[in-house]
Amino acid sequence: MNKEKIGITVSKKEDFSEWYTQVVIKAELADYAPVKGLIVLRPDGYSIWESLQKTFDVRFAKRGVRNGFLPVLIPESLLGKEKKHFAGFNPEVFWVTHSGDGKLGDRLALRPTSETLAYTLYSKWIQSWRDLPLKINFWNTALRAEIKGTKPFLRTSEFLWQEGHTVHATKQEAQDEVSEILRIYQSVVQDELAIPVVVGVKSEKEKFVGAEYTTTMESVMPDGKALQMGTSHFLGQNFSKPFEVKFSDKDNVEHFAWQTSWGVSWRLIGAMIMVHGDDCGLVLPPRVAPVQVVIVPIKKSSDTTDTIHAKAREIGHTLESCGVRVQIDDRDGMSPGYKFNEWEMRGVPVRIEIGSKDMEKKSVVVARRHNGAKSDLGFESIGEISGILDEIQKEMLKKATRQAEELAFSISEYGKFKSRIREGGFVHAPWCGRQECEMRVKEETGADIRVVPFGSGDCNQKCVCCGEASSSIPVFARGY
Amino acid sequence: MNKEKIGITVSKKEDFSEWYTQVVIKAELADYAPVKGLIVLRPDGYSIWESLQKTFDVRFAKRGVRNGFLPVLIPESLLGKEKKHFAGFNPEVFWVTHSGDGKLGDRLALRPTSETLAYTLYSKWIQSWRDLPLKINFWNTALRAEIKGTKPFLRTSEFLWQEGHTVHATKQEAQDEVSEILRIYQSVVQDELAIPVVVGVKSEKEKFVGAEYTTTMESVMPDGKALQMGTSHFLGQNFSKPFEVKFSDKDNVEHFAWQTSWGVSWRLIGAMIMVHGDDCGLVLPPRVAPVQVVIVPIKKSSDTTDTIHAKAREIGHTLESCGVRVQIDDRDGMSPGYKFNEWEMRGVPVRIEIGSKDMEKKSVVVARRHNGAKSDLGFESIGEISGILDEIQKEMLKKATRQAEELAFSISEYGKFKSRIREGGFVHAPWCGRQECEMRVKEETGADIRVVPFGSGDCNQKCVCCGEASSSIPVFARGY
Repeated sequence: MNKEKIGITVSKKEDFSEWYTQVVIKAELADYAPVKGLIVLRPDGYSIWESLQKTFDVRFAKRGVRNGFLPVLIPESLLGKEKKHFAGFNPEVFWVTHSGDGKLGDRLALRPTSETLAYTLYSKWIQSWRDLPLKINFWNTALRAEIKGTKPFLRTSEFLWQEGHTVHATKQEAQDEVSEILRIYQSVVQDELAIPVVVGVKSEKEKFVGAEYTTTMESVMPDGKALQMGTSHFLGQNFSKPFEVKFSDKDNVEHFAWQTSWGVSWRLIGAMIMVHGDDCGLVLPPRVAPVQVVIVPIKKSSDTTDTIHAKAREIGHTLESCGVRVQIDDRDGMSPGYKFNEWEMRGVPVRIEIGSKDMEKKSVVVARRHNGAKSDLGFESIGEISGILDEIQKEMLKKATRQAEELAFSISEYGKFKSRIREGGFVHAPWCGRQECEMRVKEETGADIRVVPFGSGDCNQKCVCCGEASSSIPVFARGY
Repeated sequence: MNKEKIGITVSKKEDFSEWYTQVVIKAELADYAPVKGLIVLRPDGYSIWESLQKTFDVRFAKRGVRNGFLPVLIPESLLGKEKKHFAGFNPEVFWVTHSGDGKLGDRLALRPTSETLAYTLYSKWIQSWRDLPLKINFWNTALRAEIKGTKPFLRTSEFLWQEGHTVHATKQEAQDEVSEILRIYQSVVQDELAIPVVVGVKSEKEKFVGAEYTTTMESVMPDGKALQMGTSHFLGQNFSKPFEVKFSDKDNVEHFAWQTSWGVSWRLIGAMIMVHGDDCGLVLPPRVAPVQVVIVPIKKSSDTTDTIHAKAREIGHTLESCGVRVQIDDRDGMSPGYKFNEWEMRGVPVRIEIGSKDMEKKSVVVARRHNGAKSDLGFESIGEISGILDEIQKEMLKKATRQAEELAFSISEYGKFKSRIREGGFVHAPWCGRQECEMRVKEETGADIRVVPFGSGDCNQKCVCCGEASSSIPVFARGY
């Protein structure tokens, strides 16, 4: 148990990619599965996902969304029913061809996404206006064969996500749903994970295959690359027509319904690690931390009484009764320093130290993970820890917002644009709206249009690429 | 919207199998997916699963079990590492052979169960006694190709379940874990689903492939067939040896660890439907019912004021503030009778009716789904509904226990035994312990040994089959 083995051995600044992987593995969030491109979640990693699930479930329920279950196997014929959609996903589909020793009649796809399956069922379930709106969310996994550049949480061949699928009687109602869901995504990511996002729409080229338009939230990572944090799609009637999702209205006339789909994945956990972590390891926002406070009793070998441990346990109970998630680290045979390093690497927001001197002073030392600050807190004031956790949560969002601002640039000249893209960051630049320019930028810089922020139209400037009149100011960046 | 379409058209007694399927589909718990043998869960069905998940999570957490995530794909080589285990599952494994247009180097199995994958990881994670016990549970699905006799919840090619996998330093500790988990299973099934179970061990022939022994809980369904409700396995060192799950003890000597695995699946929902349902449809135990109370305001067309609806809403709020899950059915254009039938079919435990006469009497009519009883309840006493729900829960367990007792028989004579098995039920009969007799019974009657109840040994009787001295009194039955 030497420090080297458990500590992070590279700096975030110097080797971001290696740093990231080490944090994921050494903080015991995840590990590699035996199949390339697949990971497993260890309890600390899964606990963060469960915490997000709980928050989303409450928010979704308020909008009348309920959860359901869909199987992972989809017949090939069904997947092909919406042509563009199929063409988009086909190259990365896993195919089941056999069961036991026998060959299957039809190949079965492992779900890359569930539109085709869900809407086959919806068309049976929906008959009348009384059956609308129908709003179901599925907490499951999606499978897409990723061959290169796989990375835990960011690019894996199977990933945990939620996919919501709603059906509405009117276009307006469906579009409102798309917006409201994106709003929920944005506020959960900001409030729970302390990460700021840019919201807007995807370009035609980047939208979901089969959608009329895709709204998205994007964040810039500390290495200057963009990460798509969640998308909410307006599907129009693109699926309701081939899948015959129809309803008879109050006037008994049959109409095709209007649909939406939307999802966030465990990529959010990857973003959280990248945005907040430091050279000592993980830094967890208190709201999603599996353990929010670790108490380390520091007992010298000469101490003969057990008063320190008793006090630690008492403080632990007090905090638990305030709803704080606490762990007491009373392991024998490990130095306090070793313990501090370990809990820092695991990102626990607050460490409480209590030794014989503290006992005399009737106070504990409170160490904050996100900024390293240490202060004393009297025994009588232990209840203030809840407030300190809230404060930390807010400070982490502020810091992350500053970080993102430092990586945001407004540029209208193509030479500067290209060199900035090379260095990384979110580059806001005017664009004429033509795919030709979007493609040229991609070829020459590797950057995509990540998002056209809401309200960035009507800008009266010149396209950074061709010099023609611009129609919006998208965010260009290279992405994960 | 005629009654025939939504109501159950066969009686439970006359055509149990058709009755079951109609209840599942018409009460909107589940529906068939486009691939044979697969089902989807609609929100009411999934909500029952979520309710069970929450209860189990709390109970598991108290034993130090945490949740994790495992991918669905397992390399063929890994699955084959424990020979008996592989032979047991191989015939029903789904195989992935391609991704996109390319052929995979190695075939990948869709998880039939996760022992092999989990223990490959555990062998990396466990080094020292400090890492034990390790207790992780996975809420996922298992996939086993079922070709004939598929039935929603009871026999499907993909099913929702939880699989727990624990590792211990000593044999005793692992065996205690096996027992404690079975105890949790039993109490959750009794307390939440109101279903009595018989607990004990499986025979050698029926145990989990790879286990040293399997403990089980079994219930008798109203058609006299047995349903396995959950199993908890002592794996001994059968997996720790091939998978090298080892730890160095305090004395620095390396040992193979002792392991357990255990699971319950959505079969529990199938059991709940079968045990409690009646000719009108589903009957839900209040503790797992998505809607516990439905309020139906009954307004005559001559009524001009909205006082009835206002009162219904007020009662709804009062109940919600008591933690009751309520729905108000104020749909227009449907008769109260139509609504009553629909909510009865969907199994809602309590219906509250409120019309103008009730308004005058300052009371509502409370109708109980499980026994059809109706009574008045004064406006002032609405809070009593919580108590009524508890009462219903208890009465349902009592009724189910009586039902199970009526289907339990003690028989020691082979002729009577055979004719009883033919008619159905749990037949307790002495057994010599030899597989020869177990096989003969299976061949001649179709019955398996479902469970050897705890404490049924030392019985000093004669084997029902061969007449030799018996060593236990197992439960024989034909099963699902």
